[in-house]
Amino acid sequence: MITLASDFGSPYPATMKGIILERTDARLVDIAHDFPRQDVRQAAFWLREILPYFPPAIHLVVIDPGVGTDRQVLVVHAGDHVLVGPDNGVLVPVAETLDGQPDYYRTETGDPESTTFHGRDVFAPLAADIHERGVEANVEGDEFTRVDQVERVDFPEPTLEADLAQGEILAVDGFGNAITNIPGDFLQEAFGTQVQVGAKSAPARRTYAAVGTDERLVTVGSHENVEFAVNQGRGDEAFGVDVGDPVRVQKDR
Amino acid sequence: MITLASDFGSPYPATMKGIILERTDARLVDIAHDFPRQDVRQAAFWLREILPYFPPAIHLVVIDPGVGTDRQVLVVHAGDHVLVGPDNGVLVPVAETLDGQPDYYRTETGDPESTTFHGRDVFAPLAADIHERGVEANVEGDEFTRVDQVERVDFPEPTLEADLAQGEILAVDGFGNAITNIPGDFLQEAFGTQVQVGAKSAPARRTYAAVGTDERLVTVGSHENVEFAVNQGRGDEAFGVDVGDPVRVQKDR
Amino acid sequence: MITLASDFGSPYPATMKGIILERTDARLVDIAHDFPRQDVRQAAFWLREILPYFPPAIHLVVIDPGVGTDRQVLVVHAGDHVLVGPDNGVLVPVAETLDGQPDYYRTETGDPESTTFHGRDVFAPLAADIHERGVEANVEGDEFTRVDQVERVDFPEPTLEADLAQGEILAVDGFGNAITNIPGDFLQEAFGTQVQVGAKSAPARRTYAAVGTDERLVTVGSHENVEFAVNQGRGDEAFGVDVGDPVRVQKDR
Repeated sequence: MITLASDFGSPYPATMKGIILERTDARLVDIAHDFPRQDVRQAAFWLREILPYFPPAIHLVVIDPGVGTDRQVLVVHAGDHVLVGPDNGVLVPVAETLDGQPDYYRTETGDPESTTFHGRDVFAPLAADIHERGVEANVEGDEFTRVDQVERVDFPEPTLEADLAQGEILAVDGFGNAITNIPGDFLQEAFGTQVQVGAKSAPARRTYAAVGTDERLVTVGSHENVEFAVNQGRGDEAFGVDVGDPVRVQKDR
Repeated sequence: MITLASDFGSPYPATMKGIILERTDARLVDIAHDFPRQDVRQAAFWLREILPYFPPAIHLVVIDPGVGTDRQVLVVHAGDHVLVGPDNGVLVPVAETLDGQPDYYRTETGDPESTTFHGRDVFAPLAADIHERGVEANVEGDEFTRVDQVERVDFPEPTLEADLAQGEILAVDGFGNAITNIPGDFLQEAFGTQVQVGAKSAPARRTYAAVGTDERLVTVGSHENVEFAVNQGRGDEAFGVDVGDPVRVQKDR
Repeated sequence: MITLASDFGSPYPATMKGIILERTDARLVDIAHDFPRQDVRQAAFWLREILPYFPPAIHLVVIDPGVGTDRQVLVVHAGDHVLVGPDNGVLVPVAETLDGQPDYYRTETGDPESTTFHGRDVFAPLAADIHERGVEANVEGDEFTRVDQVERVDFPEPTLEADLAQGEILAVDGFGNAITNIPGDFLQEAFGTQVQVGAKSAPARRTYAAVGTDERLVTVGSHENVEFAVNQGRGDEAFGVDVGDPVRVQKDR
């Protein structure tokens, strides 16, 4: 199985699929191709949330603002999974979630046909090759060089006090739910009460439908983080927040 | 085969696929994941139009504004198909189209990990489990309770006279074609003439290209209903109608 | 393997998949379903760029503004590939790229259920039938008529002088890269210098990241054509160009 994730939109992912299917009969599964363009940190967040639900697979990830520069190509062996993508940090959070001690390898890209579409010319052929021959075969062939240092993206740590959490919006999903880096546990005893989000007051509730349609709430999302939402509406707009914004959540005493 | 339909947009459907592929090697086919958010009736319309074209399959449907509340989980046995989703009416029109007498079952959801993403925590595992063991095995295991009463969504009936039809816009497709609940038969003898749509006059034609580019027409769409369209343009905008709007179509005498 | 390409958006492609899966167990691969609506030439461009990367397959293409009119149904045998779609030119550039001498066939459509959705009623069943029986079987059955004349879309030829190229924007991709019909070779010796694009000056560079974020550049894209781009931004907007616009690129002396 090879999964595919990119910020390509359409139709470039189809070219990568052609490249792979020309070389293997791997099952292909799309993760998403509409990750925010060239936003390595948001893609890293989503991949960490999604890929661990998959059975062992090769995960091809092309969020690659440095395409054609001297950024390196990374192959990661993490548990039974293999991750293939640029060495810009996008693979690291999910790798460390899949396996506390992932093995990182660099490989040479030869002389790609283009300087602008390494998804087609470098990463897809590499994922297909690993599918056919395995990482181990490639390692034995000296095509891979094990490395200890890789580029990283780091998610900010929240500051937690008994009644006050300060954090940041990590991502906004398609529904408009604004996902913070504040762990859901912070909210547990506050369910049923009002909390302060910046200057706004909002009910802390376990489900979206616990408030009226179009009303704001603070909840614990499926990522187990505190999330700002609106029942059947967009939390990011109602709370006036976007990715990267600092946020404060104050429990009522 | 498991088909997947939701209003999740991206990337949450990938999480459901991971859950399923961890448990089965079922073939997966996406129906759509961009159904209008939390609009149970429109999703019910599209599923009724699409799923009957499929061979026997398990159809996983997650349009679920009541996630985390006491809304029930429904499994439907309809002909050779199985439908899995929330008991909010979204499954009923397609179930009754597939099989005049579908069998409805409820099942307990245990204690899902989240209160906000039952596609991941309840419905996808259930669909995978049914794929592996079958509905019958589950029924024998007493995990399912047969029920007669389920939530319903109902489509309005049009009022038809010889020369006047009054109905409603059921859906607008991606091209902008506004699909009414008026049966196409109403228009048959009017082809080639002008009809009145509200205060507007428009030609009744069999094909989009029978009128000039950007010109309005009334036609019979692929759902066999009267449809308001524009050749290579958007009918909803040209006729000023949206889902749920009442419409009148008057034939010329 | 059957690939699917259309301008249907969602959810109509699912109906075509149901039709095919009812008849075959072919592997299905989506090329794209968001090609610009009823824009035969842009779809023809993208298919020519993408499909040659695939292994032998049946390619189902439904960009069909003339649905329901007397436009013909075309089946093309091009190398080991088969193309199925309307005879409006959309299949020709890719067919001639796959095989210098493709074989073109017409076939009768019978009496389709609808006049508005031949993807469902004509093309998908035909692709499935060819998958099951092969083109040759169909030819022997006299269901196909070989033809020499087909509808064509033609891409404009650029005018090339030593330091001046005049061409046209063929397509804009999802990143906003504006892809011209000027061959990339024209730019080779200009890398590292400034070029004139209409009244604007821009650096010619091999990679997007060779200029600052949000800065314009002229590069050679993955299609090996000259492309107007912005590093992590939209080239079409920065250069003020859209599909079909004439463009001039002047090298510095």
